[in-house]
Amino acid sequence: GGLTVAAAVKRILPFEKIIYFGDTLHLPYGDKSEAAVQEYSIKIVHFLLSRNVKLILIACNTASAAAYDLVKQQVAGKVPVINVIDPAVAYVVANPRFKTIGIIGTKGTVRSKSYPNKILEISQEKKVQQLAAPLLVPMIEEGFIYDNISNEIIKTYLSNAELEGIDCLILACTHYPIIKNQIRKFFNFKTTVIDASQIVAEKMRQTLMTENLLNTATQQANHEFFVSDYTHFFKTLAEMFFEEEINVVQNNIWQK
Amino acid sequence: GGLTVAAAVKRILPFEKIIYFGDTLHLPYGDKSEAAVQEYSIKIVHFLLSRNVKLILIACNTASAAAYDLVKQQVAGKVPVINVIDPAVAYVVANPRFKTIGIIGTKGTVRSKSYPNKILEISQEKKVQQLAAPLLVPMIEEGFIYDNISNEIIKTYLSNAELEGIDCLILACTHYPIIKNQIRKFFNFKTTVIDASQIVAEKMRQTLMTENLLNTATQQANHEFFVSDYTHFFKTLAEMFFEEEINVVQNNIWQK
Repeated sequence: GGLTVAAAVKRILPFEKIIYFGDTLHLPYGDKSEAAVQEYSIKIVHFLLSRNVKLILIACNTASAAAYDLVKQQVAGKVPVINVIDPAVAYVVANPRFKTIGIIGTKGTVRSKSYPNKILEISQEKKVQQLAAPLLVPMIEEGFIYDNISNEIIKTYLSNAELEGIDCLILACTHYPIIKNQIRKFFNFKTTVIDASQIVAEKMRQTLMTENLLNTATQQANHEFFVSDYTHFFKTLAEMFFEEEINVVQNNIWQK
Repeated sequence: GGLTVAAAVKRILPFEKIIYFGDTLHLPYGDKSEAAVQEYSIKIVHFLLSRNVKLILIACNTASAAAYDLVKQQVAGKVPVINVIDPAVAYVVANPRFKTIGIIGTKGTVRSKSYPNKILEISQEKKVQQLAAPLLVPMIEEGFIYDNISNEIIKTYLSNAELEGIDCLILACTHYPIIKNQIRKFFNFKTTVIDASQIVAEKMRQTLMTENLLNTATQQANHEFFVSDYTHFFKTLAEMFFEEEINVVQNNIWQK
């Protein structure tokens, strides 16, 4: 799912090199315990630091909710760390049109209450309503999209009373951008559906600018994609999410 | 439809001000004669020049096919002019994986043979196959998207013998990005579907850089949206395409 964020980063920062680590061995994070997600996240962050990255992006809502503070602690100021929650939170808080904010995400993200806590911490006037939509990730991965089956599943989730009266809906899972327009259509394009990946990529550009870390080259870099477990299915999915053929290298950092 | 391109420009060049003119009075261009599209395009270009724009983008495939040369002639080097065809052509020609290139667009775009002519002019080894898909624009505008009806329509067009064996498909109409993922799914995500709007926005960035015209401000500008005929339906559609609430001003430049 993080590849939807990587794709947005590639679009907005075409001259930056991406080193991507997909923990396919332990997917999906959405149903795992906080402790497990924290352990995995820390291991991955040390792998990325060993590759001399200049910025770390936690491109997963569940991991951002469970492990952002811990990851920042581990990184100890060596490089900036960005999660996918704070930029979306800042975006909705800044918009006075969004009074009642809806959130859909995995069980882990919803259970963490990261979004409501962070939003209400900044603005007490906002109302936040969230709903776990656990079938959406496997539904997307199995290709049930843009058809009547997925429309019925989406309708069942989004008609839930928990989401009544919302002014906007944050897609709080990096899988959901794939069905963003389908979700927008459910609302007849009248409710703003927020795909955090673009907001996050924009936040990354700002951070790189502020920290004077922007690459001055004007040539596309060779991105590197690692996964902890390689399957053909992953490659198919990866190309659906990243929208480009990619060369995926297996690197099981848990075996070393 | 041009608003899908405007949205991509806004994403990639967030600090540039967009002045948009939508010729809603004469839409759709796709079914009109070359002469009519040329006349409209020239009038619009003079309106834009009167607003002191620093670059003109013809954000419509039909108009790019019919009127690009004429528009350049009228602009007479005062500002750079970009169309939506050449960047996509350069993109597919540069990729050796794309041997047989499929094109879908309006009748006007297909009839003009702009894509095959421009592609074959650069690379004689490419094979180009094109198909007019005239129902897709009204289908999208009437909201028949992400459902079984639109899947059947898409399937009927894309199963056409004209598109057999293609390695990639260029969406040669600015309406089609709305159903890009639905089209990708028809191919089971195995055929590259090219949404030219992003490539065009990237081309615009390069042009502004090369010409030293990039805005150095780091604040979002107030875009301006004009239409020749205002309807509520247009506003609804505009927000579907642009993904943001916009303030549309009627300005019938044909009445002055």
